[in-house]
Amino acid sequence: MQKPVILVTNDDGIMAPGIRNLISFMLEIGEVVVVAPDKGQSGMGHAVTITEPLRLEKIAVNGDHQEFSCSGTPVDCVKLAVNKVLHRKPDILVSGINHGSNASINVIYSGTMSAAIEGAMEGIPSVGFSLLDYRLNADFLPARKYIQQIVRSVLKHGLPKGNCLNVNIPAVQEHEIKGIRVCRQANANWVEEFDHRKDPRGKDYYWLTGKFQLHEDMDETDEWALANQYISLVPIQYDFTAHKLISQLKDWNFNA
Amino acid sequence: MQKPVILVTNDDGIMAPGIRNLISFMLEIGEVVVVAPDKGQSGMGHAVTITEPLRLEKIAVNGDHQEFSCSGTPVDCVKLAVNKVLHRKPDILVSGINHGSNASINVIYSGTMSAAIEGAMEGIPSVGFSLLDYRLNADFLPARKYIQQIVRSVLKHGLPKGNCLNVNIPAVQEHEIKGIRVCRQANANWVEEFDHRKDPRGKDYYWLTGKFQLHEDMDETDEWALANQYISLVPIQYDFTAHKLISQLKDWNFNA
Repeated sequence: MQKPVILVTNDDGIMAPGIRNLISFMLEIGEVVVVAPDKGQSGMGHAVTITEPLRLEKIAVNGDHQEFSCSGTPVDCVKLAVNKVLHRKPDILVSGINHGSNASINVIYSGTMSAAIEGAMEGIPSVGFSLLDYRLNADFLPARKYIQQIVRSVLKHGLPKGNCLNVNIPAVQEHEIKGIRVCRQANANWVEEFDHRKDPRGKDYYWLTGKFQLHEDMDETDEWALANQYISLVPIQYDFTAHKLISQLKDWNFNA
Repeated sequence: MQKPVILVTNDDGIMAPGIRNLISFMLEIGEVVVVAPDKGQSGMGHAVTITEPLRLEKIAVNGDHQEFSCSGTPVDCVKLAVNKVLHRKPDILVSGINHGSNASINVIYSGTMSAAIEGAMEGIPSVGFSLLDYRLNADFLPARKYIQQIVRSVLKHGLPKGNCLNVNIPAVQEHEIKGIRVCRQANANWVEEFDHRKDPRGKDYYWLTGKFQLHEDMDETDEWALANQYISLVPIQYDFTAHKLISQLKDWNFNA
């Protein structure tokens, strides 16, 4: 049987330990093509680069394992990979492993998940993986067998068009992980706080900081799963329409 | 009665004709506070600035009309406006008027709509406006009465928590606009094409281009409305969960 072609990207940059681990996990499953940002792109959301040209640098080509770094965002990487590197759709796209959570509302700010969503838009079965540990020396190994299981399941079953998966992994020892929990995105937001400082020339500047605020405590959510040492798996779609609101807005009688 | 406080932002930058028009339309309705990017931020999606500090520059303060430019993304502008300029939630947030469509799948790449979605996350009734004309000399005046009508309606009715509106306006004469149509986001995607060039030093680079590809032709969609000279109004939510897929994924028996 032919090996599956696995496209790997991330938002922490091609040298981040998270993607290096993901590449090693994927080499045990298929042929790996990496197209990832040449620098950290955290918090880029679904940004694309339209005012600057993009660069694509061949890093390594070695049998079943090719790597390219790209000057753009995670979404740019996916577009370039499909169009200019693979010249076809890969069998699966995996993004990550992100250093830090992309559960709940973080999905909207996340470059890792935007790459997966972009994959879904292009009809590629796609999964974003994140570990709840921001540190450079985070331990990704406890997640290995679960990540491989999820990738093998997606390769076997496929995913419906327009959907991808958001997988978050608690930062615990392997024997402490209770399993994989299919769930929904928890309702939460970030309460902003800005760290207001003055530069050496006396001018104001601000660092964005914030506190994550959860609005519910239900056991069907990703935040509940993670807090209880499960790996959370949320199926994702990108229709932003609030369908339930349509009839209510029609009652506003705009054209009366 | 006290005038409503209207927060205005955009993604084309504070000097763009689109926002200058929106500001003038809003000054006829309420007290206007502008916090907008100091440069174009198109295609930034829901990006936030976390690796650089943010600058906020007072441009004009004049009774009912204050303006600040911000070095960050549209989402940064909303966060800074609420926390460091207004020190409260405005009565409404309006974003735009974008030069170019944010209908259909464009919503996910759009800085204009990300600002509105960020507003919704913070509990502010928020509306993004876009005109289907990329040109600097686009004519925003035909949209004036409709934009004011929508803003007054939202101020009157409010919007449910977690929702905002995505309003797109066809680039036609005022008498050609058939009215406002409440509808859903059309199913479409961008088929990428990269313009591949060589720089003066012989190195490859790529410009992202693409063709918009519509997957349906239904009269309840924003693309249909716009093609038929209606202003499209799509209610937006930001729960990415594909709820219908949850039971199907549970059948994969990850923990068997």
